[in-house]
Amino acid sequence: MDHPSLIDELRAFVAERDWSQFHDPKNLAMLLASEAGELLAEYRWVRNEAADSMSREPEARQRVADEIGDVGIALMLLCDRTGIDLQTAMRDKLAKNRRRYPVEHAKGRATRPVV
Amino acid sequence: MDHPSLIDELRAFVAERDWSQFHDPKNLAMLLASEAGELLAEYRWVRNEAADSMSREPEARQRVADEIGDVGIALMLLCDRTGIDLQTAMRDKLAKNRRRYPVEHAKGRATRPVV
Amino acid sequence: MDHPSLIDELRAFVAERDWSQFHDPKNLAMLLASEAGELLAEYRWVRNEAADSMSREPEARQRVADEIGDVGIALMLLCDRTGIDLQTAMRDKLAKNRRRYPVEHAKGRATRPVV
Amino acid sequence: MDHPSLIDELRAFVAERDWSQFHDPKNLAMLLASEAGELLAEYRWVRNEAADSMSREPEARQRVADEIGDVGIALMLLCDRTGIDLQTAMRDKLAKNRRRYPVEHAKGRATRPVV
Repeated sequence: MDHPSLIDELRAFVAERDWSQFHDPKNLAMLLASEAGELLAEYRWVRNEAADSMSREPEARQRVADEIGDVGIALMLLCDRTGIDLQTAMRDKLAKNRRRYPVEHAKGRATRPVV
Repeated sequence: MDHPSLIDELRAFVAERDWSQFHDPKNLAMLLASEAGELLAEYRWVRNEAADSMSREPEARQRVADEIGDVGIALMLLCDRTGIDLQTAMRDKLAKNRRRYPVEHAKGRATRPVV
Repeated sequence: MDHPSLIDELRAFVAERDWSQFHDPKNLAMLLASEAGELLAEYRWVRNEAADSMSREPEARQRVADEIGDVGIALMLLCDRTGIDLQTAMRDKLAKNRRRYPVEHAKGRATRPVV
Repeated sequence: MDHPSLIDELRAFVAERDWSQFHDPKNLAMLLASEAGELLAEYRWVRNEAADSMSREPEARQRVADEIGDVGIALMLLCDRTGIDLQTAMRDKLAKNRRRYPVEHAKGRATRPVV
């Protein structure tokens, strides 16, 4: 690989600024939620039926991509700090979701939040 | 690779339940933010200095991993729907953050939110 | 008035459980955001045009009212802890928003987030 | 009363800008959550033990008050749109929380989120 991995770049970014002192899991969960709030803000006045096309307009797309980048960075920092592997966490949760929402009951029906 | 990729599993999970009708980018941004809120809830009564050790206790760790899994799934669904590549978005945003927070000014100082 | 004010009831609720130790402004901001995330979850699969009618269906309405109640409680606890008067904060912010979004420019146009 | 009530001012602010078209309950729940995310951002790098004193520093206090104002405005808009009375919702939820967390079990113990 001819360039450093993203996690290595991210660790260097944090280390150079001496920011790991702020990055305990509580604060990183707050970072993640506040970045998710900024992403949310991009879509708050767009109607459902316009959300796909809005996501293709160059300026809006760039803003959305920036917020997605911030959310991804926060999530990666939290996984790195806690030692939780993101891919494993996603696979395990997907398996739980399969059991929680059996196809025969869930098909075509929005689920209300269940924790 | 002897098992399907995570994104393929996720697409199959959604397709079997006929849920793509609900998954426009607006709704997925809401899913992401609400899952980030659940992750946040795990840490809301834990003090900063206890957040690392709490994240290692088996039961709490499992709950945190589950919420991280949900956030990751929501983020992946949003990237898949919009066609935004997560790795690229993260790299691009990291580059912007490097310029926004030069080492000499940012070192050891928490930054206040800057949108 | 023959019953205690809401803030007095809330303070008693917290004091009886010895919970003020957890209620510094940081943790209360987390409580508020996580409750806002639960409210959000109620609407995440509802389309814009169905959101008003959904809010009138008895069961959904009760869930929404419960989440609004939780958000209001968290906001009141934060104001009480910091000594920030909610009515004053709202009036001051409304005055700022009037200047930020002059009628002639804002009329009929959704504003994108501006901090 | 020699000045209009806050809710009347808020309705006028929205009407002058022709913004009620954007203010269905779904979008207002998104507004509320994104404003709660901005409030959260103010506290994300502050340690628990410094959160009270930070909330008294004039500049930080003003930013927190502004975000509290935005959250309060979003909550009031949502209550106005849905016809849910905030005070009633808070009282009803407080009564439920009393039953959910009996004093004898809850005293001095942080509760984990229970939806």
